[in-house]
Order: sequence, then structure tokens, then C-alpha cells
Amino acid sequence: MQILTKEQTAEFLTENDRFVILTHRRPDGDTLGSAALLCRGLRRLGKTAHILRNPEITAKYAHLHEGLTTEQVADTDILVAVDTASSGMLPEAFAQYADRIALRIDHHATAASFTERELVDPQAAACGELVARVLSLMGVQLDKPMANALYTAISTDTGCFRYANTTAETFEVAAHCAYNGADLFAINQALFETRSLGRVRLEGWLVENMLLLENGAIAICPLPKSVEEELGLVEDDLENISGFPRSIEGVKIAATLREDGNRIKISVRAVPGYDAAAICAKFGGGGHKGAAGASMNCSMAEAVEKIKMAMPKL
Amino acid sequence: MQILTKEQTAEFLTENDRFVILTHRRPDGDTLGSAALLCRGLRRLGKTAHILRNPEITAKYAHLHEGLTTEQVADTDILVAVDTASSGMLPEAFAQYADRIALRIDHHATAASFTERELVDPQAAACGELVARVLSLMGVQLDKPMANALYTAISTDTGCFRYANTTAETFEVAAHCAYNGADLFAINQALFETRSLGRVRLEGWLVENMLLLENGAIAICPLPKSVEEELGLVEDDLENISGFPRSIEGVKIAATLREDGNRIKISVRAVPGYDAAAICAKFGGGGHKGAAGASMNCSMAEAVEKIKMAMPKL
Repeated sequence: MQILTKEQTAEFLTENDRFVILTHRRPDGDTLGSAALLCRGLRRLGKTAHILRNPEITAKYAHLHEGLTTEQVADTDILVAVDTASSGMLPEAFAQYADRIALRIDHHATAASFTERELVDPQAAACGELVARVLSLMGVQLDKPMANALYTAISTDTGCFRYANTTAETFEVAAHCAYNGADLFAINQALFETRSLGRVRLEGWLVENMLLLENGAIAICPLPKSVEEELGLVEDDLENISGFPRSIEGVKIAATLREDGNRIKISVRAVPGYDAAAICAKFGGGGHKGAAGASMNCSMAEAVEKIKMAMPKL
Repeated sequence: MQILTKEQTAEFLTENDRFVILTHRRPDGDTLGSAALLCRGLRRLGKTAHILRNPEITAKYAHLHEGLTTEQVADTDILVAVDTASSGMLPEAFAQYADRIALRIDHHATAASFTERELVDPQAAACGELVARVLSLMGVQLDKPMANALYTAISTDTGCFRYANTTAETFEVAAHCAYNGADLFAINQALFETRSLGRVRLEGWLVENMLLLENGAIAICPLPKSVEEELGLVEDDLENISGFPRSIEGVKIAATLREDGNRIKISVRAVPGYDAAAICAKFGGGGHKGAAGASMNCSMAEAVEKIKMAMPKL
């Protein structure tokens, strides 16, 4: 595996052609926006580029990839994965390509790489930021659809500039998007300002049913499948729901538990000064200090007890 | 009344001394942040400057004015109002000073001015942006508390960069705050990421009790005083609550109705393409296309009927 600088990445993309871009499973605005930005940028340079249609793309983001996708990968195509830290993050349908990915552009630090080359910068708030810098080195100017794709990527991964990864540079990239015609307000409305009725009901339900420990500093939110069905939720309603309990005043560490087949998936979020990854490590999971995950092979009630026991005393 | 440019405002502040800064009633992050920024900036230049203690300041913002306030105004003090469009927007306790305000710095366009001089720029996303530019003309560098005050002002009035008033310039000011040490994440957590339990319950209540018209494009949310009391809400829980129903997917125009003594206060919010001010004008109110208000002297039930009739057919 070869580690590339931004300049080397620009060179690699300039010297090659016939690209197919891969995004990760449960695709979000960063992976989808980065793919759209890269695909459009390569096409601006006269290259053939497509995005491999992600079967998990949701209605909210579908417009980003309109006119850019393909269903097929030829043996001679050069595969580029964006915002994808491991082969396990690829959609199942993409698994067959996992061992022939030529380049990965990403901002997740990982122990082992799975691609032939990689450009990884964990300092970047979003993968889209890296793609933008590489395209800029290649002499590509942002047009409006590209500015929209980039703005979608950075605003998604910074929670619209609210998360701790937001820096002066992030704001400068956002200003760059705005100067190049990005539809800031329309994107914000769609991604952040708008909550579905289902989402608002879900948040109301979680508040009334969560378990508060340590004087409200720890919140544990079990969300049974039956409730998801009762509230008529769709996948978009549940996006980043694990961030919700931590957003309640006074909560320092929050765990959200969802049923996934006969497993319980746990997402832990913590404010700075607390360690979500350490809690999830007790169950074989991992992640960052601020956000981590694990899964358990037990009932919801048992999982709630286990996670209660794993929480620190505050 | 004299209309000042930014340069003339800088000159006026440079030439004078002994300033007392006034903020508006129901003070928000922009008026409080602008006042803190201006007060600190003037002090950096060796001037005597205080903020007249706003009796309505809430716990969330109290730290901004620590060490900066006064309770007294001398006859020779020069009064400056920030983010205050009319004398009616001053707290009652400040009414006695309304006719001797030397300067108003504001981004609200108004028909009639009430101060001796004014610097008004409706293009500015926040009043804090104007204060920052004037201080910069006076040669004041931002320090960390000033960067925090400015960031509080601009993030408040742009809904943390989500509203339609956010521009490339706004992001550049935000980058400037970040470079000068603003605690972006801590401020975001306090102002945006954190919702009180009361707020989350309130939103849940509103969703279950709102009136949806025109296939969900119009939302009318009556909020009786009795419910505010039942949910144990404090003023901070209700801040910008009129923005909430418009944030529900599909809603184009939303009206929120609250009891204020024996009057009903109505706030209307609309997405671009619809006109909130036109609706409120029918009841003698006003505002912008995106956000407007009015009040009615009738019962809640009557007010709901009247606002229903005033809504356009979509």
C-alpha cells in the first residue's frame, strides 16, 4: 500500500482515466457529496468517471448522484473509494471489488489500509475537503453543482458547523462554496432545518422513555423495533439518532440501543472529557472518544443492564 | 437624525468617551454579543465603557457580560444601542433613556429612527458583524473574549449558519473568530447542540397538537399559557420556538400563537417564496418575508380562527 500526498493523488488522477467511485454503506452527505464532487471534477477534465450506484442511497440525497451513476464495473476501470475507512464499510454489493480499489481518499485514521493507494488526512473535517483540495491542485474550478456537493459534504460531517471538528479552514471552505454559488439555505433546509414528523415524534418518545443516571449526566435510550414500527419510522427518521440524547442539556454520555435482527447495536456519544470508545471497548467495539459503537448478542433488557454497568461514575 | 457610514461611526467612537451600551428586551446572542464586543473593544482603546445591565438577560448568556455591566447612567454618558430597531424594543427599565441615545448600530431596516445617529446595514447577517467592522476600522484586534462575543452574535442570528441570511462573508467572519481563538464547540454546544428537557417536551407537545392545513404546508401551533406551566417551561425553553414548526418537513408557512396577558402574540415564519409579513400585516403587524409578528386582542381560539382565514391557499 502506498501513502499519497495531495499532490501525488492529483498526479495519479491526472495520469489515469475511466474511474468508478465507491461510497460507503448507510451513505451520508460526506461520502455521497465527495463522490459527486470527484466525479464532476474528473469529467470537467474530460475524463470518463462514474459513481457506482449505492443501493442504500436515501431519497434525501438521491439528487446528488443524478446523471453520474453506473451499475457496472469493467475490469479496466480504476476504482476510487471515498470516505470509506475499511472494506467492511462498503455496501454488500460492492464487496466483490474490495481487493481491487486503486485509491482511497478519506479522513478516517485506520490501522490497516485495504486499498492500493491512499490519501488520508484525519485533520480534515470532511472527506469532501480533501477531494476539493486535490481537484484544486488539478486546476478544476468549482461550478454550482460541485459547490453544492462540497457544501453537502462539509456541512454533513460538521453537523452544519456545530461539531468539534469545525475549524477556521472549514469556514473558509464554506465561504468558497458560497462564493461559487452553493445553495446554502436550500441544502441547510433539507439536511438540518427540516425534521420529519416521524423524527420529532421519535425524539419525543425517546425523551419520555430514556433512563437518566448520575443526575442526568448519563442517558440510556433503548429503542425497540416495535416502537420504530409503531411510530412508522423510515431510515431517514433515524439518521444520527444516537446524537440526539447527548444533545439534551446536562447529558455528558449517551447510549442509544437499537435492535438489528437478534443483535443489539449500541451507539455511544460523549462530550469532550469523556470517552465513548473506552465504554464500547468493553463489548468488543470501538470508535473515537466522542462517538463509538458496539453490538451485543442478547436481549434489549440485558443490553441495557450491561451498558448501565459499563458507564463510569461521574 | 444622522446616518453614519462605518468610517464615521469609528470616528464618532474614537472622538468620544464614557460609553454606556444598551441591549434590547428579550435579549439574544446578537444584542448581548454585540454589546460585549463593543464594550471590550472600547476598553482596549483605553476608553471607559459599560453595558447597562439588562434585567432580562438569561442564564445562558450571563457570562458574556460578566465584569462589563453597570446599573447607572450619568448625564454625561454617551449611550449606544445595539441591535435595537425601535425604542419599543428596549427593556422597560431603559425607556427613560430612549430619547437620549447618541448612536444606534443595527442591521434591522426600520422606517423611523429613534436615535441621534445610526449605522444600519440590513445586509449584515448580525449586528455583531457591523460592530466588528467598526472596531477593525478603529484598529482593534480581536482577543479571545471578543472572538467569543462576535461568534455568539453571528451564530445566533444565522441559526448557526443555517438561515437564509448566511453568506460567504458570514463564513469569513466565522473563520476570523476561529483564528482568534473563539471556543466554537463550547459555544455551539451551549447555544445549539443542547436542548433542555423542557424544550424537547415542548416540541413533542406542539407536534401532537398543531393544526396542519393545505396538506401539511401550513402549520398553526397554539401554545396556551396553561401548557407552558404544565410542562414547567422557562423562558430559555421557548427561545425561537416560532422557528420550530417551520422546521417540520413539508411546512412552508408556520404560525405560533402564545398568550401574553390578555393578548395573543403571533409569530409567522415562512420559507422563501412565501410572505410572512403580508399575513401579519392583516392584523397590524409586520416584519420580513421570512419572519413576522402581530398581536391580537382576543381569545386563543378566536386568534387561531383568524390566522387560519389569513393564510394563503397553497
